Amino acid sequence: MTKAATTISTRTRWVYAFGGGAADGGAHMKELLGGKGANLAEMSALGLPVPPGFTITTEACNHYFDKGRTHPGDLAEQVSAALARVEALVGKGFGDAANPLLVSVRSGARASMPGMMDTVLNLGLNDQTVEGLARLAGDRRFAFDSYRRFIQMYSNVVLGLDHHMFEEILDDKKDVLGVTIDTALGADDWRAVVADYKAEVLRELGEPFPQDPQAQLWGAIGAVFDSWMNDRAQFYRRLHDIPEAWGTAVNVQSMVFGNMGETSATGVAFTRNPSTGENRLYGEFLINAQGEDVVAGIRTPQPLTRAAREEMGETAPSMEEAMPEVYGQFSEVVGRLERHYRDMQDIEFTVERGRLYMLQTRGGKRTAKAALKIAVDMATEGLITRDEAILRVDPASLDQLLHPTIDPNAEREIIATGLPASPGAATGKIVFTAEAAEREGALEPVILVREETSPEDIRGMDAARGVVTARGGMTSHAAVVARGMGRACVCGAAELVIDAKAGEMRARGRVWREGDVITIDGSLGEVLAGSIAMIEPELSGDFRLLMGWADAVRRLKVRANAETPLDARTARQFGAEGIGLVRTEHMFFDEDRLAAVREMILADDEAGRRAPLERILPMQRGDFVELLNIMDGYPVTFRLLDPPLHEFLPHTEAEVAAVAQATGLDAAKLLRRAAELRETNPMLGHRGCRLGISYPEIYEMQVRAIIEAACEVAASGKAAPAPEIMHTLVAKAEEMNILRGLTDRVAKQVMSERGVTINYTVGAMIELPRAALAAGEIAKSAEFFSFGTNDLTQTTFGISRDDSGRFLNTYIDKGVFEKDPFVSIDAEGVGALVRLGAERGRAARPGMKLGICGEHGGDPASIAFCESVGLDYVSCSAYRVPIARLAAAQAALGARAAASQAALSVRKD
Amino acid sequence: MTKAATTISTRTRWVYAFGGGAADGGAHMKELLGGKGANLAEMSALGLPVPPGFTITTEACNHYFDKGRTHPGDLAEQVSAALARVEALVGKGFGDAANPLLVSVRSGARASMPGMMDTVLNLGLNDQTVEGLARLAGDRRFAFDSYRRFIQMYSNVVLGLDHHMFEEILDDKKDVLGVTIDTALGADDWRAVVADYKAEVLRELGEPFPQDPQAQLWGAIGAVFDSWMNDRAQFYRRLHDIPEAWGTAVNVQSMVFGNMGETSATGVAFTRNPSTGENRLYGEFLINAQGEDVVAGIRTPQPLTRAAREEMGETAPSMEEAMPEVYGQFSEVVGRLERHYRDMQDIEFTVERGRLYMLQTRGGKRTAKAALKIAVDMATEGLITRDEAILRVDPASLDQLLHPTIDPNAEREIIATGLPASPGAATGKIVFTAEAAEREGALEPVILVREETSPEDIRGMDAARGVVTARGGMTSHAAVVARGMGRACVCGAAELVIDAKAGEMRARGRVWREGDVITIDGSLGEVLAGSIAMIEPELSGDFRLLMGWADAVRRLKVRANAETPLDARTARQFGAEGIGLVRTEHMFFDEDRLAAVREMILADDEAGRRAPLERILPMQRGDFVELLNIMDGYPVTFRLLDPPLHEFLPHTEAEVAAVAQATGLDAAKLLRRAAELRETNPMLGHRGCRLGISYPEIYEMQVRAIIEAACEVAASGKAAPAPEIMHTLVAKAEEMNILRGLTDRVAKQVMSERGVTINYTVGAMIELPRAALAAGEIAKSAEFFSFGTNDLTQTTFGISRDDSGRFLNTYIDKGVFEKDPFVSIDAEGVGALVRLGAERGRAARPGMKLGICGEHGGDPASIAFCESVGLDYVSCSAYRVPIARLAAAQAALGARAAASQAALSVRKD
Repeated sequence: MTKAATTISTRTRWVYAFGGGAADGGAHMKELLGGKGANLAEMSALGLPVPPGFTITTEACNHYFDKGRTHPGDLAEQVSAALARVEALVGKGFGDAANPLLVSVRSGARASMPGMMDTVLNLGLNDQTVEGLARLAGDRRFAFDSYRRFIQMYSNVVLGLDHHMFEEILDDKKDVLGVTIDTALGADDWRAVVADYKAEVLRELGEPFPQDPQAQLWGAIGAVFDSWMNDRAQFYRRLHDIPEAWGTAVNVQSMVFGNMGETSATGVAFTRNPSTGENRLYGEFLINAQGEDVVAGIRTPQPLTRAAREEMGETAPSMEEAMPEVYGQFSEVVGRLERHYRDMQDIEFTVERGRLYMLQTRGGKRTAKAALKIAVDMATEGLITRDEAILRVDPASLDQLLHPTIDPNAEREIIATGLPASPGAATGKIVFTAEAAEREGALEPVILVREETSPEDIRGMDAARGVVTARGGMTSHAAVVARGMGRACVCGAAELVIDAKAGEMRARGRVWREGDVITIDGSLGEVLAGSIAMIEPELSGDFRLLMGWADAVRRLKVRANAETPLDARTARQFGAEGIGLVRTEHMFFDEDRLAAVREMILADDEAGRRAPLERILPMQRGDFVELLNIMDGYPVTFRLLDPPLHEFLPHTEAEVAAVAQATGLDAAKLLRRAAELRETNPMLGHRGCRLGISYPEIYEMQVRAIIEAACEVAASGKAAPAPEIMHTLVAKAEEMNILRGLTDRVAKQVMSERGVTINYTVGAMIELPRAALAAGEIAKSAEFFSFGTNDLTQTTFGISRDDSGRFLNTYIDKGVFEKDPFVSIDAEGVGALVRLGAERGRAARPGMKLGICGEHGGDPASIAFCESVGLDYVSCSAYRVPIARLAAAQAALGARAAASQAALSVRKD
Repeated sequence: MTKAATTISTRTRWVYAFGGGAADGGAHMKELLGGKGANLAEMSALGLPVPPGFTITTEACNHYFDKGRTHPGDLAEQVSAALARVEALVGKGFGDAANPLLVSVRSGARASMPGMMDTVLNLGLNDQTVEGLARLAGDRRFAFDSYRRFIQMYSNVVLGLDHHMFEEILDDKKDVLGVTIDTALGADDWRAVVADYKAEVLRELGEPFPQDPQAQLWGAIGAVFDSWMNDRAQFYRRLHDIPEAWGTAVNVQSMVFGNMGETSATGVAFTRNPSTGENRLYGEFLINAQGEDVVAGIRTPQPLTRAAREEMGETAPSMEEAMPEVYGQFSEVVGRLERHYRDMQDIEFTVERGRLYMLQTRGGKRTAKAALKIAVDMATEGLITRDEAILRVDPASLDQLLHPTIDPNAEREIIATGLPASPGAATGKIVFTAEAAEREGALEPVILVREETSPEDIRGMDAARGVVTARGGMTSHAAVVARGMGRACVCGAAELVIDAKAGEMRARGRVWREGDVITIDGSLGEVLAGSIAMIEPELSGDFRLLMGWADAVRRLKVRANAETPLDARTARQFGAEGIGLVRTEHMFFDEDRLAAVREMILADDEAGRRAPLERILPMQRGDFVELLNIMDGYPVTFRLLDPPLHEFLPHTEAEVAAVAQATGLDAAKLLRRAAELRETNPMLGHRGCRLGISYPEIYEMQVRAIIEAACEVAASGKAAPAPEIMHTLVAKAEEMNILRGLTDRVAKQVMSERGVTINYTVGAMIELPRAALAAGEIAKSAEFFSFGTNDLTQTTFGISRDDSGRFLNTYIDKGVFEKDPFVSIDAEGVGALVRLGAERGRAARPGMKLGICGEHGGDPASIAFCESVGLDYVSCSAYRVPIARLAAAQAALGARAAASQAALSVRKD
């Protein structure tokens, strides 16, 4: 309920007035008035001191473009009426030579679009009114300086002239006068500059600079509208997915001047500290200055409060000290604005001769840390609810709080850029092999730099502080594993030409050698030279508080994908409620296991495979006991052997020779077997449950290891273990039937041998379109589903995540993809299959447990999707567990809001 | 309406009598009586001379297994009544020592299950009845020979004794007598053998051989039932997907003897020639013999007719000459049977002392050639309708008629076996490289033997008569290309160890060198030693006639996948109605083009790519003009560049060096670029429309070539060309929008340059699950869809066809796949996506043209699926066009039958 400023009875209201303690619009009218106009109206209606003005609506803008760049017939009349209201409120006349009203003209779209169009200030000045301004201000220099600024701005923004020509004129003038700074010019100097400027406009355009304020005004209005279609604006809109149909509003506002002497000032303020979130007024101001002076950085602004000044050790007085009365008023207004908007505000203000004017307010941008603190504080203060606090923090931003980050003030010398594959920053010496990483990493920090990584590199990756690859996308092996380990990682830095043999890499014409120190920023995808200052993460009380609130709200459980005891412990510390994915083959890469695994692969028949499997069994069992113990009764989903067997063999002749020598295996046989097993498309090859069906003895060993481990844990008197045995790459119910039979047979046998009953379940990883389609049939033998959306995205789109780097950027640039579908789930395609699979699965087996264990499990947008499908849990890498907890809470709140909205609309019907 | 033989008023009738000109059952009762029993009943009811007997139903079999291997309480009573009826009809008594009735006991399931259980003949003989038989037959030797045969059979089949022990006894006897053949034994000798046999049974079982005919009968009935569950039967059922619940019937029939002297005989006959289809009685018989003698091959059977005897130059009289009266009767009966069953019959008969008995009739197996001729002849004779004739020929069998085949009488020495990848046979000298194939193939026939083939081998494959690969499945590159070219091909012959460098291959311990002559049988998947006699195909008038009838009936259009003028001409000759898939990149592999293509790939920027594209343009245009001309107004679907660019580059250092030298391209750059472009999963890589979106200039060139070609053809005054431009690997509507824009822009430009309007359309290949899901959106810019079910199968199942060979056989063995899903479409999964895509596409664009261009387009089962989805056309390799035409006709008839069935059931409701 804002107080109406004007009453206009035309059919369409194109103009909304504000100021003088009243407004036609309000903050809720952003679509019609744009963000700036709506907030100016809101502040006016609140009775705050806003220079009066009016907003021409976005609808007028749309009319303008729909009708061949012409204005609505009644716009002129409405603008006149609104202008007359402004004249009345400020007691000046637009174009009045003795008592001139000056205005600013600014664009203002629904969404902030920085740089779309420059502001025009001081509009209304001409050769007559400049004299009136001089008299009113008692400052002739000020008046002509204002006039020349206006001519320059208007000529550039409205008339389309290059601003360089005006700067040249001014520079020439200064040369002639022998001065270097603007302040050295007097009133007459500026007057002369004005004359030169006008002559220049006449020369360039063949027409004089417009002297009629009405013509100036309509010129500026048209220019604001036109700017909506300029290249910069179109590019920005495409980039941010802003519809052209939104249009822009135009704000016309009476000018106030912060540069009218020592009782005038201008400044910006945040109601709380936007870096730390601290609840103290934060900002800076300049006496006798205009807004652009604050930005230009010629003079150093002063802090607002005395406390801030003292902390900074400044001597120049703060606003609190320099103009205590105005400061008192400002402080009161600012508090009121925050309470009114119920959020931290970013405010612009001007003081003209001791009088405060509010020019803008909007929600303030803030760091992740500040967002967290402000949300928790405001909820504690009672300003917002806990639910609102949960919604105020961007889950993805938590990543910044969980990893070290590069000091924002540090200088960065970029060596190469790639994808921001795993957040955080790390510094260390370059190593080019996993072995070197293991060896050197034990002594000092290293960064592992590889063409790409493979499962054999895991120990080296673990030993390194960070990982860089020249190839691979956001879900390449390096990226997935690094995120899982919480290691910083930059992937696909294609500029790097790596010569591991020579122990060097080249990029941008420079050579970096093994042992050189580099820093990587995994949050930005940058590889940087040398060692750079870091900020360590601190998981404050606020973090735990907000997480607790989130946990109370969310419906989705959050689990982690984890194989190592370290991962599992990290996951528990971050609040994981179980493991959603143990990739059981990761343990095969340990040195002592790998030899047995290779022996198994080289065997000619089942009997030959069984012997090495016997040796692997106790090792796998030991691993599984540890995971089940750490998870202390929470469910643990064991996915049986998934990758094709050739991943476990050495490939090049040199690697083969090394392995043969180390293990005593036959080199020729190794090489032949590797060649035999080579696949054209390993992603679509002999892997997953296809291995278990071809070589049942492998899965028998794994099932035995899981159930034996569970028996051991159960016998130890700890919380009852809850193993979930998951079969992967299932496409048909027939596969699941075979695998269910195998699993139950072995489990029964082990339980009877041990005399222990284990509450295990058997399920399917749904990661093929065929499986989603056949989910109803598969659910007859699968007790749970886990949607493997990494592979499901690969197969649904027919895109290999390892190879997608070559065209993904083009696809995002050309608008084919809004986001990388491996990062955020493609709801219409991949998501449709998840939904179908969930529906068909639950139809066949009511209430069956459903989860997701792809990388999407840690992506907020994807988690919202999972909530909408009604999954039971998401599982993600340990370091994303807090993100998932918060995103799950937001998704639950979103779902509740949608439900109550729906209930409301039903009641209305 | 068969005449009832008996009237039994029990609640369940377990026993159905036949013989004596009447029967309780008929041919329509195969489910209850099994195939043999139903046909015996049918012949009896027709009044044909069938030895009387009865059939115990499959329901009795099911009861037997359901109730712990016990018979229904009233079965004994029903068997007694039926046996009494037989006794009355033949005037003998079962177990009557003076006038004994002997019976045969045979199993008979709904489907023929050869070898499931041996027959028991002469049941009812014992130490008393054998004397009666001797007197009745007036032949004591015959009686005891019959008795010893019975003991041997019964002991083996019912009592489970090894038949070797009986053979040993007989051999010992012959040694003692100093004779070598059975006929040398007299009545007393056989009597002694009988005694020894009985003694052996007693020794083995501890019980005497059963003398009570009733005990013999029930023993045999139980044995027949038990045989339903033996290993052989279970294996056969699993193999042929026969449900266990079908059960088997038991046929008990009075014995007749073809071995009662010179007026007795036994024989088999086909009502038409099963090899050629010729409408003449065909078969053979033996005087004074039992059925097993015909099979055993000790005596040479004689032809049935005089004409056949004379043709064969035989002197022994035919049945027509030896027993003219019986022959006359037989000839009449046989004609009646064919007319009655309206199909060629396979008949068994016996003549006992001048009296004809019919023992079995069933539809006769026949060669593809005979099936064709018989179907066409019968339709021409008016015996069946043309629709029925269409349904009588297995479309897949036409393959035999279109390719040379190995003479079935020739000896085969198998070198190695693989997959029957492309039908037909070919003989030639071994070559191990595509270059050698080109060079040598021009001079004499060669067979190209490779580890696997790649697009670079195409010219070599074309120059060879046949292709053998050691790796790859039914849809590997070699298989697909060979089928397209009509070349015989054996794929995945894993036994072959090929050493191309050494110019030799090894298999089964032998070495074959370049230049050695081999023969391949692509229909069976065999590689054979030396040159083998062939039968050339002959496309007779019958073939054209049947194809014409099929064309009149089918709704689906049939197109071919073709790139070369030769393929296109072959396709037209086989009746293709257009080209459904021109893989435009196939032309890139021609030597003169490849250089330009490689130069384009090596270029650093768009400008660098445009120059070689300019050189490729006229060549592509020329190709397209030729295809459009050959297709003479029929539609031609041009699929733009699909494979990843690395397929066009040499890979090994040696290849690179050769290319660099030949073309002047920079070797280092070639190698580097090949490495850069290398993909982990090329199937899911930077290919298809992803290339067109990354490098629009390539697609622009191709669209230009197509439209310029169409303009040329249109200007030449020939039939208006109908080019369809197809974009491949589309996943999202956004891609199609971009590509549609590109296509229309270039097309418009070309048409305006040339002043010609071309009626082109732009469509999408739907080959990704994502595309099927988004079909509604994609259809907004796609004017047609072609379902690429090869890739759709790969992505839906997550199975690479190049790598599937390793587990496909295991999957088929274990029942996961019924058929290779790359051969026959997976209706529930891949098919569901095709159906979804078709429905969503047509919902968005009513009546849009839909086709299929995967390998499935030539598979009859998949064609029936396409009919059910309502596609407009199928497209397959040229040599499969006739198969597709016939299969499409059958599918249309099937759909009509289903529709009228549905209409009937609606009327009934």
